[in-house]
Amino acid sequence: MFESAELGHSISKRTYAREEPKLRAALLDAQYDLFQDGRFPVVVLIGGVDGAGKGETVNLFNEWMDPRHIRTEAFGPPSDEERERPPMWRYWRALPPKGKIGILFGHWYTDPVIARAYGDIRQPELVQRVERIVNFERMLADEGVLLLKFWFHLSKQAQKKRLTSLEKDSSTRWRISDTDWEHFRRYDKFRKAAEFTLRETSSDSSPWSIIEGVDANYRSLAAGRMLLAAMRRRLDRKPPRKRENRAPPPAPAIDARNVIAALDLTHKLDRRKYENLLDRYQAKLNSLSRHPRFNRHSVTLVFEGQDAAGKGSTIRRINRALDARQYRIIPIAAPTEEERAQPYLWRFWRHVPRLGRFSIFDRSWYGRVLVERVEGFASEFDWMRAYSEINEFEEQLAEKGGIVVKFWLAISKEEQYRRFREREKTAFKRFKITPEDWRNRKKWQAYEAAVCEMVDRTSTDIAPWTLVEAEDKLYARIKVLKTVCERIEEALGSR
Amino acid sequence: MFESAELGHSISKRTYAREEPKLRAALLDAQYDLFQDGRFPVVVLIGGVDGAGKGETVNLFNEWMDPRHIRTEAFGPPSDEERERPPMWRYWRALPPKGKIGILFGHWYTDPVIARAYGDIRQPELVQRVERIVNFERMLADEGVLLLKFWFHLSKQAQKKRLTSLEKDSSTRWRISDTDWEHFRRYDKFRKAAEFTLRETSSDSSPWSIIEGVDANYRSLAAGRMLLAAMRRRLDRKPPRKRENRAPPPAPAIDARNVIAALDLTHKLDRRKYENLLDRYQAKLNSLSRHPRFNRHSVTLVFEGQDAAGKGSTIRRINRALDARQYRIIPIAAPTEEERAQPYLWRFWRHVPRLGRFSIFDRSWYGRVLVERVEGFASEFDWMRAYSEINEFEEQLAEKGGIVVKFWLAISKEEQYRRFREREKTAFKRFKITPEDWRNRKKWQAYEAAVCEMVDRTSTDIAPWTLVEAEDKLYARIKVLKTVCERIEEALGSR
Repeated sequence: MFESAELGHSISKRTYAREEPKLRAALLDAQYDLFQDGRFPVVVLIGGVDGAGKGETVNLFNEWMDPRHIRTEAFGPPSDEERERPPMWRYWRALPPKGKIGILFGHWYTDPVIARAYGDIRQPELVQRVERIVNFERMLADEGVLLLKFWFHLSKQAQKKRLTSLEKDSSTRWRISDTDWEHFRRYDKFRKAAEFTLRETSSDSSPWSIIEGVDANYRSLAAGRMLLAAMRRRLDRKPPRKRENRAPPPAPAIDARNVIAALDLTHKLDRRKYENLLDRYQAKLNSLSRHPRFNRHSVTLVFEGQDAAGKGSTIRRINRALDARQYRIIPIAAPTEEERAQPYLWRFWRHVPRLGRFSIFDRSWYGRVLVERVEGFASEFDWMRAYSEINEFEEQLAEKGGIVVKFWLAISKEEQYRRFREREKTAFKRFKITPEDWRNRKKWQAYEAAVCEMVDRTSTDIAPWTLVEAEDKLYARIKVLKTVCERIEEALGSR
Repeated sequence: MFESAELGHSISKRTYAREEPKLRAALLDAQYDLFQDGRFPVVVLIGGVDGAGKGETVNLFNEWMDPRHIRTEAFGPPSDEERERPPMWRYWRALPPKGKIGILFGHWYTDPVIARAYGDIRQPELVQRVERIVNFERMLADEGVLLLKFWFHLSKQAQKKRLTSLEKDSSTRWRISDTDWEHFRRYDKFRKAAEFTLRETSSDSSPWSIIEGVDANYRSLAAGRMLLAAMRRRLDRKPPRKRENRAPPPAPAIDARNVIAALDLTHKLDRRKYENLLDRYQAKLNSLSRHPRFNRHSVTLVFEGQDAAGKGSTIRRINRALDARQYRIIPIAAPTEEERAQPYLWRFWRHVPRLGRFSIFDRSWYGRVLVERVEGFASEFDWMRAYSEINEFEEQLAEKGGIVVKFWLAISKEEQYRRFREREKTAFKRFKITPEDWRNRKKWQAYEAAVCEMVDRTSTDIAPWTLVEAEDKLYARIKVLKTVCERIEEALGSR
């Protein structure tokens, strides 16, 4: 795998002086075309052996192109903001929007490879982390991101030579630390872990490019030309066709039974009993949120439901039990311009709660498999792949101690009609009802089918759906509060 | 995930009697269209809880459709043929060809889920096996296989009821064994392992369909209609477009150096020294092949090289050292009709050696990234994905104790010309030279670039390439023999 990068590639000064200006001009052109075109982002990963010219290449790219449209990110040890969220969170934050280039110096590969080289993780854990990377990069490819992965390589001998020479020269001595030599001593282990990781993650959509790092001229031309060729190919082709969905069609309904139809909407609670239970569960929720072990967890609440099912009023019963500094309510409407320039899940990743906090989503990432599916805003390929991307997202939350509680608030079609009418009559509620609500109502059946498939595909042991009979608002609120309390207690191990 | 399959779905006798004949006729039509069309195979996996009607459904499918075009495979404990090869081997063998339906009753999911339920493997191993399945199924999808995955589910209570009632009835008692009750006792663990596995393997191209198994009428209609809908959708659509390759273009050459150009073709061996070394290494190879620990390994030798580079004569030097019962030489030419009806790697999987055996490939699976790439027989998408499929294939061989040794025999363009001319002059060699050889020669540069990329992408720690300077045949033969001996010694731990 590293054979080609141990041959002693080199480019003479003269050739470089002749080629560099041409390459530079072409790269700048491509960068502007990318910006004008605005169809996709470019993500460049810079990885490899210490001393193989990673930093120099990053600098060179910034020098060659317009740095205003490049977002360079170097990742050091995670901040506390980052440590309290799933490991991939920092990388989601760093993704460039469409039309821009993101250069990631240190990235999702750095930590697993180093950890394995140092023996901090075992092979099975490396396998698991590699699998997560494969899924993440497939998602990027499906979202149209142009992902380039450069690995700068030095043979063991070449690395030793390079470190020694940098150290000898007083002007570069500062660049070599004990860590570099410590890494060098683990060269063989590092190489082995890298070999495995590169092999498993070289996919048809984003293969690794391994570049010999000894000669700066060679290395620079090689990296620059590959970046140029990749950008040009994508820019000069017609916009890629919508991917065809290869899945079998959704299961047809065989009988009238489904998880929604099976709900008993006659559940009711009288006002007095409700007040009692409300007090009880709000007090309980409050005390759980101040539990000493709660800071090892976070809570993500998802509210979905038909229009007028009572999501908003139910959410208010929850946040009243919490300290205002501890929760955020995130109402999900149409994505902003910034959000549309990113992969679908980006706008939800940005609201992932820290440890000890609540994020309460009023509508959520499930929009893709509900409204976007039914209204045809997302292609079948896109909403089909969303199920596994969502499961993976929630898995990552759970691994970091996240408690993911998802509610579907269900009302009957008749009850919805009653509530719509009431909203129209009541002055202060009138803003809550729009022509769109009436339109959505016409697709009741299609929505129901989408909800059932959503539950089938995303109700998991890690993040189960709770279906709430919401015909009676009081009953629904208590069921929600009770479920939230139970899930937190379960996680705290105090049940 | 199992919510919809615990609702007590059922279909009345009358409805079933009305619907079944229609479904049956439609299925038979679809089956004939599939056979006529011959564009893709259908693979149906039947899995799930004991007593949920798996076997009945398999029988029903065979009754409804023409069993001559259905290949039903039930996998029991592996045969010794199977045990001595990588675990996926038996499933490759069972794949139906294009135009046919394969029903797999027991399959690549059975063993990992049961093993996890019984605690025979831990979670990280399950993760690893699931990852392999994901890759395998992605390959099937990319090859155009229509893969349907049915999971027949029973709640714990329903399973108990079902087992008890089968046991009570004297006509069905034979169907319930102690194993069934033993499985039942592990219901919760089984469900958990299944939940995880189904979640991780529900992809956009082949999601799982979970079917409630209590009511036979419901179950049968559900499975039949899903099969019908999936076949119809694929048959009625235009043939899917060739998948676009999303990869950046292959790396341009920056300097003239590459792994082939770097070879020193002046290496030579004089005849006397050659005879000595030949004797020595043939004797060594023979003794290694009779080593007591050799039966924990198999050897797969791959010979690639330019036309007239001496592959055949080198292979003869190897097989002369071996017992004829112990090796097979597999010359790879154009695929047969049977092979063309299967995924690309199928025709190589069928020749995977048992433990204690040699398979010697004269040309190999690397054809896809060499001749098929250069001549345009494979699309860029297809040969790009071949690299990772090949690495995965060789990894599976290695995990089963396989020693994979790959040789590229390199000669200069001038030497090839000389050998071609000589072949044309020598009567008994004339059959070895065709107009195609002369044509291939014109694409020397393109082949060289393909070889270099092949080495970069598939020379791995597990299965490294050995580049052989073959300008002198004697030198080449010894280098090959020596390398084979060394790799076997290494594996036997006797070096």
